[in-house]
Amino acid sequence: MPQGKRVVLASRPVGEPKPTDFRIEEYAVPTPGAGEVLLRTIWLSLDPYMRGRMSDGPSYAQPVPINGVMEAGTVSEVAASNNPAFAKGDIVLSRAGWQTHAISSGQGLAKIDPKIAPISTAVGVLGMPGMTAYTGLLDIGKPQAGETVVVAAASGAVGSAVGQIARIKGARAVGIAGGKDKCDYVKGELGFDECLDHRDPNLAAKLKEACPKGIDVYFENVGGAVFEAVFPLLNAFARVPVCGLIAHYNDTQAVAPKWAPSLMRAVLTKRLTIRGFIVSDFAARHGDFLRDMSQWFREGKLKHKEFVTEGLDNAPTAFMGLLKGANFGKQLVRVGPDRA
Amino acid sequence: MPQGKRVVLASRPVGEPKPTDFRIEEYAVPTPGAGEVLLRTIWLSLDPYMRGRMSDGPSYAQPVPINGVMEAGTVSEVAASNNPAFAKGDIVLSRAGWQTHAISSGQGLAKIDPKIAPISTAVGVLGMPGMTAYTGLLDIGKPQAGETVVVAAASGAVGSAVGQIARIKGARAVGIAGGKDKCDYVKGELGFDECLDHRDPNLAAKLKEACPKGIDVYFENVGGAVFEAVFPLLNAFARVPVCGLIAHYNDTQAVAPKWAPSLMRAVLTKRLTIRGFIVSDFAARHGDFLRDMSQWFREGKLKHKEFVTEGLDNAPTAFMGLLKGANFGKQLVRVGPDRA
Repeated sequence: MPQGKRVVLASRPVGEPKPTDFRIEEYAVPTPGAGEVLLRTIWLSLDPYMRGRMSDGPSYAQPVPINGVMEAGTVSEVAASNNPAFAKGDIVLSRAGWQTHAISSGQGLAKIDPKIAPISTAVGVLGMPGMTAYTGLLDIGKPQAGETVVVAAASGAVGSAVGQIARIKGARAVGIAGGKDKCDYVKGELGFDECLDHRDPNLAAKLKEACPKGIDVYFENVGGAVFEAVFPLLNAFARVPVCGLIAHYNDTQAVAPKWAPSLMRAVLTKRLTIRGFIVSDFAARHGDFLRDMSQWFREGKLKHKEFVTEGLDNAPTAFMGLLKGANFGKQLVRVGPDRA
Repeated sequence: MPQGKRVVLASRPVGEPKPTDFRIEEYAVPTPGAGEVLLRTIWLSLDPYMRGRMSDGPSYAQPVPINGVMEAGTVSEVAASNNPAFAKGDIVLSRAGWQTHAISSGQGLAKIDPKIAPISTAVGVLGMPGMTAYTGLLDIGKPQAGETVVVAAASGAVGSAVGQIARIKGARAVGIAGGKDKCDYVKGELGFDECLDHRDPNLAAKLKEACPKGIDVYFENVGGAVFEAVFPLLNAFARVPVCGLIAHYNDTQAVAPKWAPSLMRAVLTKRLTIRGFIVSDFAARHGDFLRDMSQWFREGKLKHKEFVTEGLDNAPTAFMGLLKGANFGKQLVRVGPDRA
């Protein structure tokens, strides 16, 4: 019987996840029952939100149970099908998790047309991260031509799309990223107006220089020192879509940020809007997202970069790196070949 | 030459305003020039936002200059007119400030029809405070039938309208006010579902009890301990219109609130919306406001209470009291009789 491989949650991390919080297991590749399909994972998507699923604090989603398979979106091939809606060889978007094979009833699977774009983009710029950028920026941030949009993790899957969409809408895009290479890419390749290094000790002063007319939209996906630098620069009526706080995911103790004492007063006097969201809140926008983003992608206005780790065994290391910005572009794990 | 009286800002308060921060002056009642009208103040409206105008920190409005007349909305009578749009004896809404008489070009004056409602309501439930409640609650808070709305200063000009509008929209209204008398009035007269005393040492526990299904809308006009009690009870997708922070207006030092370390994480995981506003941001809604609120007022669904201080000389004391909740209802100063 063929063997599959999966990564399960061995223990709930305290602070930074460590290798022993994960366990790699072998298991017998299951056989699909009536109406079911067997999925073979090609691409595994690693995303910061998974850190939240490893903890059992209150959140919008249930945590992964101890000994449960780590959750994830995947690009998978239908390896066997007892479901008339899917044929062997179909490429589908699934939430199969950190494993080589999974059984599905077919529900929630979406077919991917390899002719439109590379299939890996279905978990990247044309998938969840792209839609996070699209909806958070356009539906909450609502950038107007001439306004200034700031986003951190600007070379990452979400941040890179945020800045490029801002530019498409006629706004000034200022990115923040970790290190010179990423900044050069964000400015040189992605066409942001500016990109600053978050490790720069003068980040606050440089950000002020890069945003001479203040900040109208800050797409929050990191928190920490970046929001501290952004906060005093927010203009009247600025919008802050809050999509993630990666700088805090490993916090073991909650600390009052420097901006805390003056936050609500600024909200009032500047009439700020601070609004959290999860991509699924905007499910109704999926059609608009696919139409616009596919078009921009085809027109070359929406570039993307992938950071590929080879082999499911390396997924834990890749994920721990992702939380520290070790990736340069959308973090993927190549679990299997495009065609078996 | 007849003498008028005015209250000017003598010095910028540090912390709580004190009597010497104000100065009462006499001045010659001016004569209107070509196209101008002379206004005689009947009602002076005192509102918490005026504390902000006494300071010169960054805000949405210019501060009152030292030796300048304190700003305020008034209900005034046209005492003399060289402007064909206004006749002697007309009652108008004006921003004449803390003084007995003022000259106006006529711009910005709005005629008040004494047949519709008592003229003092033009600076109360049918004026700026009422519109603050209406727009903040309906345009940002968006309460749905069956949801729970919480508002503090619930016997005050804004809070009392917030809770009554929430009830009209089918929501549960929970008020917070200072002391048993105010709470009895809020629940017994205004028809809120519950009202809690903010001085109660068990406020957090009692609020939880009063909101068994959590809080969907918190209309923020106080800050401080009330928001601390509200924060853990906010439901997913809760909305927090931020209209005022009266508990902090006299702060001399900004302190990180207890909720500070977990605010942004809650914004993210609960998808909260926190949005500051000023009534003038919703100027386009003035027609809707007048139509709805006048109708509710006529139908007896919108009650109001006035707290009248007699004489302009007593305005500083009344204002200092307002910041401490000494008023019970909308704070007005009777500056002159309805008819001269």
